[in-house]
Amino acid sequence: MTDAPADPLVIFTPSGRRGRVPVGTPVLQAARKLGVDLDSVCGGRGICSRCQIAPSFGEFSKHGVVSRPEALSEWNTVEQRYKDKRGLAEGRRLGCQATIQGDVVIDVPPESQVHRQIVRKRAEAREITLDPALRLHFVEVAEPDMHLPSGDLERLCTALEEQWGVSGATAGLPLLHRLQKALREGGWKVTAAVHTPAEGAPPRILEVWPGFRERPVWGAAIDLGSTTIACHLANLQTGEVGASGGVMNPQIRFGEDLMSRVSYSMMNPGGAEEMTAAVRRALAELLAGTAKEAGAEPADILETVIVCNPVMHHLVLGIDPVELGWAPFALATSDAVSCSAAELSLDIHPDAQVYLLPCIAGHVGADAAAVALSESPHTSDDLVLIVDVGTNAEIQLGDRNRVLACSSPTGPAFEGAQISSGQRAADGAVERVRIDPATKAPRFRVIGQEAWSDEAGFDASRITGICGSGIIEAIAEMRLAGIIDEDGVIGSPEQTGSGRCVADGRTWAWVLHDGTAEGGPLVSVTQNDVRAIQLAKAALTAGAQLLMDRMEVETLDRVVLAGAFGAHISPLHALVLGMIPDCAVDKVTSAGNAAGTGARIALLNRGARREIEQVVRRIEKIETAIEPRFQEHFVGAMAIPHKTAPYPELGRVATLPAVSYGGAGGGDAGGGRRRRRRG
Amino acid sequence: MTDAPADPLVIFTPSGRRGRVPVGTPVLQAARKLGVDLDSVCGGRGICSRCQIAPSFGEFSKHGVVSRPEALSEWNTVEQRYKDKRGLAEGRRLGCQATIQGDVVIDVPPESQVHRQIVRKRAEAREITLDPALRLHFVEVAEPDMHLPSGDLERLCTALEEQWGVSGATAGLPLLHRLQKALREGGWKVTAAVHTPAEGAPPRILEVWPGFRERPVWGAAIDLGSTTIACHLANLQTGEVGASGGVMNPQIRFGEDLMSRVSYSMMNPGGAEEMTAAVRRALAELLAGTAKEAGAEPADILETVIVCNPVMHHLVLGIDPVELGWAPFALATSDAVSCSAAELSLDIHPDAQVYLLPCIAGHVGADAAAVALSESPHTSDDLVLIVDVGTNAEIQLGDRNRVLACSSPTGPAFEGAQISSGQRAADGAVERVRIDPATKAPRFRVIGQEAWSDEAGFDASRITGICGSGIIEAIAEMRLAGIIDEDGVIGSPEQTGSGRCVADGRTWAWVLHDGTAEGGPLVSVTQNDVRAIQLAKAALTAGAQLLMDRMEVETLDRVVLAGAFGAHISPLHALVLGMIPDCAVDKVTSAGNAAGTGARIALLNRGARREIEQVVRRIEKIETAIEPRFQEHFVGAMAIPHKTAPYPELGRVATLPAVSYGGAGGGDAGGGRRRRRRG
Repeated sequence: MTDAPADPLVIFTPSGRRGRVPVGTPVLQAARKLGVDLDSVCGGRGICSRCQIAPSFGEFSKHGVVSRPEALSEWNTVEQRYKDKRGLAEGRRLGCQATIQGDVVIDVPPESQVHRQIVRKRAEAREITLDPALRLHFVEVAEPDMHLPSGDLERLCTALEEQWGVSGATAGLPLLHRLQKALREGGWKVTAAVHTPAEGAPPRILEVWPGFRERPVWGAAIDLGSTTIACHLANLQTGEVGASGGVMNPQIRFGEDLMSRVSYSMMNPGGAEEMTAAVRRALAELLAGTAKEAGAEPADILETVIVCNPVMHHLVLGIDPVELGWAPFALATSDAVSCSAAELSLDIHPDAQVYLLPCIAGHVGADAAAVALSESPHTSDDLVLIVDVGTNAEIQLGDRNRVLACSSPTGPAFEGAQISSGQRAADGAVERVRIDPATKAPRFRVIGQEAWSDEAGFDASRITGICGSGIIEAIAEMRLAGIIDEDGVIGSPEQTGSGRCVADGRTWAWVLHDGTAEGGPLVSVTQNDVRAIQLAKAALTAGAQLLMDRMEVETLDRVVLAGAFGAHISPLHALVLGMIPDCAVDKVTSAGNAAGTGARIALLNRGARREIEQVVRRIEKIETAIEPRFQEHFVGAMAIPHKTAPYPELGRVATLPAVSYGGAGGGDAGGGRRRRRRG
Repeated sequence: MTDAPADPLVIFTPSGRRGRVPVGTPVLQAARKLGVDLDSVCGGRGICSRCQIAPSFGEFSKHGVVSRPEALSEWNTVEQRYKDKRGLAEGRRLGCQATIQGDVVIDVPPESQVHRQIVRKRAEAREITLDPALRLHFVEVAEPDMHLPSGDLERLCTALEEQWGVSGATAGLPLLHRLQKALREGGWKVTAAVHTPAEGAPPRILEVWPGFRERPVWGAAIDLGSTTIACHLANLQTGEVGASGGVMNPQIRFGEDLMSRVSYSMMNPGGAEEMTAAVRRALAELLAGTAKEAGAEPADILETVIVCNPVMHHLVLGIDPVELGWAPFALATSDAVSCSAAELSLDIHPDAQVYLLPCIAGHVGADAAAVALSESPHTSDDLVLIVDVGTNAEIQLGDRNRVLACSSPTGPAFEGAQISSGQRAADGAVERVRIDPATKAPRFRVIGQEAWSDEAGFDASRITGICGSGIIEAIAEMRLAGIIDEDGVIGSPEQTGSGRCVADGRTWAWVLHDGTAEGGPLVSVTQNDVRAIQLAKAALTAGAQLLMDRMEVETLDRVVLAGAFGAHISPLHALVLGMIPDCAVDKVTSAGNAAGTGARIALLNRGARREIEQVVRRIEKIETAIEPRFQEHFVGAMAIPHKTAPYPELGRVATLPAVSYGGAGGGDAGGGRRRRRRG
């Protein structure tokens, strides 16, 4: 054996991967050899700067090396030119240019990792690993050779294979129309946008740009709701959200709820096509507006994920939703759908790929699948109930062993509709309510003002009505203060000791705020309002109980409230009202717009798509419409919090007065009512 | 061991497959079990009658069985009803209804085989095995079930898998738009058109029709030439051609030859789009017309194969052909292209799949690939030269070890253009010529008349000109009769002894027919005509010789003349003229429109597509434009038959007079001429 010095030892952090490489090996090459996740779009040409690394110098006893400044090569002209022209942060080097000269510790900062983690704000939520279906690759393509004739596309594919390991790429006709020009404009150097929907799936070249593309490419995550449409535009290379936007769903003019839209389609020849055109136009406008806000062109959007309920799913795809209007609620397709943006007239890049998550059942759509992706009941160690509160509630119950799902027709009361003083959650709406149990005096807060109504600076003239979370808190507080009884009956001033109880026909109403003297609104909670909320919340709880029956469990470990509205519900008040089965109040959390989050996950991580496609197949679907016990649960759940269920966990944190006011519309409230149609 | 009687023995002919099956097994099921190729679309429901079989009765010592009439079951009601309603030929049974009761010999007639042979007329041609990418499957789809929710598409796919073994089928959005209605109209029984481009490739459902579809589905094989477009419509289930049609390529108004069309695109912004629209419109009209002739709707055409030269290939796909106008003649794509009919605006079934064969090189297109598919040089035991004669000739040389290809710019002379009395091959054109070597008197035949010019009943008033094969025979016969010399110089009446040699400026012309006295045409061969044919044939032979040089061979085993024009060339005259290198005259054959045949093969056998895609990659391409020896060969090949090559095989069957007339345009004919542009 000779005494030749060993090759330098390289240690990458934070991965801890280590190994010896020959002197002069570029850091990028060393990283690839050692399986370290270091990004590159330009393939080591010192153009893209995505391979930035930070050498750490000093003695690292933990790693057993001394890392000296001379362990990396001097700056070469490519690296220096990049720094002069574009700038490089202190301590950063280009991994493709700096070469290894001695033992060294090298840190790969998060933004230089291909599969970087996207940290979610909530502690209980899974992190997202960036792994988009669409990747950019800068390639040098061989020029045509008469002696070895082959097409420009075939030479581009060879370059992608040789320079990036992308094999078997295909392209559609539109790319062929542009390819030859782009290759020649770029001097046989182009940036290719390659879409690979899954590991091992055939890659598709969506676009080629001459030379190295500096501008980001974008992906859109769209939550297409019956009422509103929300869009987040994410940079597909960094995962960062560049802009967000929302518009009303223009289909509202065909019907407020989904079922009335299905009816519109049934009653009006061409009605489905009209609604399809309307929602696609709205999507196109929203995408264009959001792109503008992000400083991008619509054509820079190369990927889109859409989540929505089954009716919106069919309408946006141009499928007549008529079969969703009656039993057995047959979907045209339940699996995930992939198509091109051009097929949906989205006016973004025509070959942008659109992915719709799978539907769980005829009433449990791709939006519920997205919630499942975001909240992962299928990986939960404890038993979790997830309630996505909307006009139609989707309910999921499960843990890593088994997940059940159903939908329940709550109606629009939670969104402030069918409530006497109700309004959408917008400036001026009461959103928080407290009632002093002793004095029965209310205090409240409205959207757009920081101050509570009993605090200095509160402007009462800006009160306009009450929104969904406000009415829930109001009724829950009324129950806590003894203004309504278990059956939801509002007592008289004498019974309740509150002068705010006023006669309203044969029943009583409770006045939260009377601004009529100043020309403002009278914000009160009528007996009918209480009834509407009781019907809505009974549907929710009955659905959840149905799933608990099927799961053969009597208690829940935790509850997640999802949906834009769910995010604003106070867990204590949800329990007092009995919107959900009993649960420890500190185990009731809000996930915000979990469907939208699920869309963003599917946009940024293609593996998540395959995951949810598998998961959805394993979710057991319960059709509430045909479950005889649903009606029984519904009747019990009309009471506040519940007629028969004991709610011991709620009992630990709140005491509900044992009052009973009888009277009209009391005990029989739930029994004789007809079940509302879905929507 | 017990003495229980053995299961009946079934012997299928012509396959010879045999085996024992339990008493009561339907013949179709027995066939499947024994691997016998017996067709079925309805899956054994007695609807489609594609599984017809013919039992053979008697003593078969060859098979060692006695086949008795009672070996098949009595007619059941399904089979009897089919016979009463639709008729069944004598001796035929429905394989799905007749069951096996005893030892029996059963013949599967060709039309009941899935992979039936399509016999080609030429003895030397390979048979085609029917194996289309598109198949029809009648399925019963499970109805939707609320307890097990799944989409209609997913249940259709399950049915295809369970009933037909078609797994992993996908569908596009347009099918989803129609699917639910079709399933319900058909009472959950539909016929699905499933396209599987290759064994093991993901199948795609192109269409579903309610119930069992009686009407055939069609495929179109299109030979898209620079001048004419030909279309054959084949029944995809039987392979039979239902109708054929042809139209002129409307792009002729943008330029007669391909290069002038490329120039049009270069000089006129939007010119390429204009030409694309024109040819697509012509294709759509041709397809509609051919469909009508076959008694079909355009929407019944579900598959199309197109073969064409590279410029037409780019134009029909909407790719600007500009790069094909100059070296290095770079194709946008050289591999086979698949797209939908809608993408090409063909106005047939919008989701019909269109397949374009791969291109071999910038000047050797999908038409040459189709010729290779039809003529199979890559499987030939002997060395074959294949010459596809057209405005641009494609030449292939090879055997099972190696195949070479090139193209050569022959110009339009072979098609009668640039010839003083020339015309296209149509009624009235002289197509055959003989000259008596002693008397120098000509006799000839014209298209549209059976009689030769010296026979009773010949009508001289119907002569209009001379077509390509006529001028070739005329010049070859002039050479045999000593009217022209080796250099192509027409001699004087004194030199030749023919009074038909008349002065034409400084040269001589030879009069074939003078109808001027009756107001008819003067059909003569001028010195310029001879020159034009010499230039064209020299290009052909020089290209062939270039390939022979590269292959390092000096003789050919056989020659195939292809192309609509090639079919009409007399082998002897082609040799005398020196259009091809020397070869035994009985080894020179015509393949007719081999490119069109190749298109039909690719249409009817999907394996042939994979085969030609592989073969094309292995073909070695020679670019004549950059081969220095091309010019040398060209000069030698200007002589008739050749200046330097000896043509010993020709010498066995013909003696060429050793005459020499010198004179203007003689010996220097080839040398100083500029090479014409391609087209």
